[in-house]
Amino acid sequence: MTDGISTQVRLVRRPDGLPVAEDFEIVTERLRALRHGEARVVNDFVSVDPYMRGRMREGASYIPPFELGQTMTGDAVGRVVESRSADLRVGDLVTHFLGWRDVAQGDGKLFSRVDELPGLSTSAYLGPLGVTGFTAYVGMTHIADLRDGDVVFVSGAAGAVGSVAGQIAKLKGAARVIGSAGSPEKVTALTERFGFDAAFDYHTPDPARRLVELAPEGVDVYFDNVGGPLLEAAVEVMNDFGRAALCGSISGYNSEEEAPGPRNLGQLVSRRLTLRGFIITDHQDLYGRFREEMAAWLADERVVTEETLVEGIDRAPEAFLGLFEGRNTGKMLVRV
Amino acid sequence: MTDGISTQVRLVRRPDGLPVAEDFEIVTERLRALRHGEARVVNDFVSVDPYMRGRMREGASYIPPFELGQTMTGDAVGRVVESRSADLRVGDLVTHFLGWRDVAQGDGKLFSRVDELPGLSTSAYLGPLGVTGFTAYVGMTHIADLRDGDVVFVSGAAGAVGSVAGQIAKLKGAARVIGSAGSPEKVTALTERFGFDAAFDYHTPDPARRLVELAPEGVDVYFDNVGGPLLEAAVEVMNDFGRAALCGSISGYNSEEEAPGPRNLGQLVSRRLTLRGFIITDHQDLYGRFREEMAAWLADERVVTEETLVEGIDRAPEAFLGLFEGRNTGKMLVRV
Repeated sequence: MTDGISTQVRLVRRPDGLPVAEDFEIVTERLRALRHGEARVVNDFVSVDPYMRGRMREGASYIPPFELGQTMTGDAVGRVVESRSADLRVGDLVTHFLGWRDVAQGDGKLFSRVDELPGLSTSAYLGPLGVTGFTAYVGMTHIADLRDGDVVFVSGAAGAVGSVAGQIAKLKGAARVIGSAGSPEKVTALTERFGFDAAFDYHTPDPARRLVELAPEGVDVYFDNVGGPLLEAAVEVMNDFGRAALCGSISGYNSEEEAPGPRNLGQLVSRRLTLRGFIITDHQDLYGRFREEMAAWLADERVVTEETLVEGIDRAPEAFLGLFEGRNTGKMLVRV
Repeated sequence: MTDGISTQVRLVRRPDGLPVAEDFEIVTERLRALRHGEARVVNDFVSVDPYMRGRMREGASYIPPFELGQTMTGDAVGRVVESRSADLRVGDLVTHFLGWRDVAQGDGKLFSRVDELPGLSTSAYLGPLGVTGFTAYVGMTHIADLRDGDVVFVSGAAGAVGSVAGQIAKLKGAARVIGSAGSPEKVTALTERFGFDAAFDYHTPDPARRLVELAPEGVDVYFDNVGGPLLEAAVEVMNDFGRAALCGSISGYNSEEEAPGPRNLGQLVSRRLTLRGFIITDHQDLYGRFREEMAAWLADERVVTEETLVEGIDRAPEAFLGLFEGRNTGKMLVRV
């Protein structure tokens, strides 16, 4: 049960460049009594993700833009505290897309009951077992078509998706996995914690040269979370028939002007490279296999994850902004 | 028989930017008598191709660079005039890679006997039935994975590969094929002669806008012969799950500095686009199927081609330079 008050974060202004606190508004709302078929959920964790920056722009994309004055939507996990839905019971753990609020309510169909695994924080259903892990899995195995013995490079490798992508590559037969990240601490985490074979700080003036040093045999698979100069560097060092899975390009999300792209796309022809963008929602058919494999890897601690937690739903904007300042290692979450 | 003199064109200096006549030297060589296993061929036609510009640079690529002081290699077609090879008879039509010379000789294994089809100029074995046509076929059907009802855009569409690629698209079920070319005459040729549904001059200040006008339903497949601004424009208008076959990027071949790439590669993610480079020599397994289909299309005149001929092997450099000035419609050839 709750006191019937829901604190929520709304987008009230479309950001110009880097979002600022004033683009958001914190509101409290008194929830009405549940109607037939509805449920009320108290969130444990709410996800903030880089792709949300794209939704703050007007205009059609693969997902509609956020509406001004409306509560930010996105992934969250919580427990049912009240239910008039036949499918949900009080105490059920559920994931949903109702976003930046401490208490969510609505039709039972908006909530997906989670089959809980022992020994995991409920945050895992947003992280390695959620959209984050599934994105890493699909990008590495299906889009980049990882093959035994491949040399793999992951950018944004200390992030939620990248840190899992690198570990999946190793588990799936990569000969060598290299990651880039944005601070000495993160670079250390890549090799010490996440099992990357080598790592470097993307602030280096010549990332292609660093890649050649760390992967003198060239790169077969590139998992791109960053775009811009790191995509250019990856193309520069990719072997014949190399494949890049393009997952996102955080380097450009806050620019209103699109930055010049890689100068070396002519090499896509001479080295027969493939660049392929993907969106996880297109690949639901792979979810069953993913869930089975990832559950086993987590149980054996063959996949390890980190979380960066910000406490309190009112600090969701701060957590979100932190993504662009590189303040997270692993998944950035708001603990409600 | 010949008088035993071969006129040949050698590369004597690596071009700086656009090649000039002084980068080449015309030499005549007295051919020695054939040895056992060898044949002598008088060429009908010698091919000049944009990709040769890349081979004029030092450094490894998918094909080794031309050596200074050596005769330019490349595709040619001619007839055997003398043979000490058991596999070749006088009068046989052959294709080979011995390049810019009027008379070629060497081991019989260097020459491939052509199974001649009725009613075709021997130049067809360099053009629609040769590497040119095969490149168009593989790029459109295999790399871009053309599907029924696709809207297709071909850049460099009045060129040797582009003009055939557009026609193959129509024959293979494209709903609509749009081409770009570099002069009003070529634009007219695209719709009047090669059966494109629409065409535009790439010198337009905003090619993406022209594409939106000509393909308001968006583009599913892009066949790229040009790179640079046209690749950017194509990405801008591609539909979800669009596929680009990257065949070459003539816009950049003469630059020593690589030009900035497309600014809009972030759209590869949001619209799940694939860019894939290819080199025709990787796809010999598709040659049999290609040859059968193309022979039928040519016999029925469902594929038509143009040639731009320059007379005399000593004018091969001029023909080659003409490629970069857009002087050719269809295949540029030297008639020997």
